Amino acid sequence: MTESTLLRTRLTDLLGIRYPIVQAGMIWVSGGKLAAAVSNAGGLGLVGAGSMRPDTFREQVRKAKRLTDRPLGVNMPLFYKYSEEWVAIALEEGVDIFFMSGGSPAKYTPMLKERGCKVVQVVGTAKHARKSEAAGCDAVVAEGFEAGGHNSPEETTTMVLVPQVVDAVSIPVIAAGGIGDGRALAASLALGASGVQVGTRFAATTESSAHQAFKEAIVSAEEGQTRLLLKKVIPVRLLLNPFARQVMEAEASGASKEDLAELLGSGRARRAIHEGNLAEGEIEVGQVSGLIRDIRPAGDVIRAMLTEYEAAVKRLPAIT
Amino acid sequence: MTESTLLRTRLTDLLGIRYPIVQAGMIWVSGGKLAAAVSNAGGLGLVGAGSMRPDTFREQVRKAKRLTDRPLGVNMPLFYKYSEEWVAIALEEGVDIFFMSGGSPAKYTPMLKERGCKVVQVVGTAKHARKSEAAGCDAVVAEGFEAGGHNSPEETTTMVLVPQVVDAVSIPVIAAGGIGDGRALAASLALGASGVQVGTRFAATTESSAHQAFKEAIVSAEEGQTRLLLKKVIPVRLLLNPFARQVMEAEASGASKEDLAELLGSGRARRAIHEGNLAEGEIEVGQVSGLIRDIRPAGDVIRAMLTEYEAAVKRLPAIT
Repeated sequence: MTESTLLRTRLTDLLGIRYPIVQAGMIWVSGGKLAAAVSNAGGLGLVGAGSMRPDTFREQVRKAKRLTDRPLGVNMPLFYKYSEEWVAIALEEGVDIFFMSGGSPAKYTPMLKERGCKVVQVVGTAKHARKSEAAGCDAVVAEGFEAGGHNSPEETTTMVLVPQVVDAVSIPVIAAGGIGDGRALAASLALGASGVQVGTRFAATTESSAHQAFKEAIVSAEEGQTRLLLKKVIPVRLLLNPFARQVMEAEASGASKEDLAELLGSGRARRAIHEGNLAEGEIEVGQVSGLIRDIRPAGDVIRAMLTEYEAAVKRLPAIT
Repeated sequence: MTESTLLRTRLTDLLGIRYPIVQAGMIWVSGGKLAAAVSNAGGLGLVGAGSMRPDTFREQVRKAKRLTDRPLGVNMPLFYKYSEEWVAIALEEGVDIFFMSGGSPAKYTPMLKERGCKVVQVVGTAKHARKSEAAGCDAVVAEGFEAGGHNSPEETTTMVLVPQVVDAVSIPVIAAGGIGDGRALAASLALGASGVQVGTRFAATTESSAHQAFKEAIVSAEEGQTRLLLKKVIPVRLLLNPFARQVMEAEASGASKEDLAELLGSGRARRAIHEGNLAEGEIEVGQVSGLIRDIRPAGDVIRAMLTEYEAAVKRLPAIT
């Protein structure tokens, strides 16, 4: 892979990027440094507003812009109290690619489209994808059950969700959930996606802002060690550490939404991802953690994905 | 697709079939008629012993053999009391391809291999795949969370499980769970699988032995309408009918294994699939039911999958 190679899809045309690989917005992980590294390597980096106060968010967007002159975006979980401020700041700082999750696409899309921005909505159902297209979104991220962090209660996996969403809308679809290498990139494009969004694999990079212990937890995670938990509160995929096992037990004995919210308390994700407290924090990672074996620079992740993609495509037999 | 076309992989070489498409063993669904139809169309049909008394099983194997001279196999869930008898009958009837699920691969594999049979084990983890390879199995089915019916408690999805299993063993891997069209076939091969096992899509065929009402339930199922339930008893993916919703509610309020076993009672799958009681029975279908829109002959399913496979592969962009 050289500076001039391209893997062209409808998504790369839409966003002006070289490879159809988007780095997911991840709280305590995707600051300006990671976003810029991904964009510099030809993907699309996103500054994830999720864990940031407005002033920190502005600082991280500026940092990313200082570190790259390639296309760059932001991700905003719309259920946070700062969403209004984040949108205003991003516009002030000249951001023109918005990935929105956890809220209605009708809220900001028309206004952002009027200002010439590209808007992409994260969805977990074809129904939500249709709503996003109707609201004027340029693309959707179809995020399957296997993804880390917050997730849809319908539990549809990437293998089923992506073709379902592709059949439901005519805008480009970005596959997410379970994608950490070039085999999964090839599989996603075969399902009809125009690109992929990659979370956990980028969380375990040198440029990720996460605590070293969190990155190492991804590397040492084996298969079957995550679960989608806290469905009565808000579904989230966690690595099975002592805290997550406590939640599992509480759920198995019928704990109510209120009990679970109390057990959860606040700041659990911060504790694991930012502070490295692997026993008490929420370790938000995807099932793909079982396939991740090292911490490496984000650019290396992208280059490896492209090499693996080529090998995977070459392996596909023709009908003779 | 003509009588002489091939989609060659390690799996087609192993089994002597034309297309790497295996029809899953499904209780009350996969009798001799369906198995023969799939084999006649170039895939591998399996007579599923699951719901059958020994004499019925013998009858269905004979029926399949009467209807096709192509390679044909059987599927046996090893936790049933008849497994010993089923194995003996299959051998007497000249069956030489065995798909085994829900039990230890060490139980029958050495004996079957000695008699020149091919043995394939259904697994939900890479660990189980390694055990199967060590026991002498010729291939494994890696069945993801999205699959219908009984399933692994680890909940790993097809997108993540298949590459995990491919990395763990050197025998061919058959992807299962969420696969009903040629896009998913292409995606599975891109992930490194040598073929696919297809359940729900074949349950909704004219040759399927299921009750017409069950087939129509698959066709009318929309996205997000199945759940993996009864995890405390034995995990099973069901369509959300009144019975399944009762289970969900019981589970949410902390019902014990015993409570759930009592609520389940016996013969629930028979009631839905064989008798067409869609309110009280267990409607065992996969998430892919949301993508199935018709009941058609099994041969048409295979031909459509091949056409869609070709289109999906052609769509994959090259790196330029």
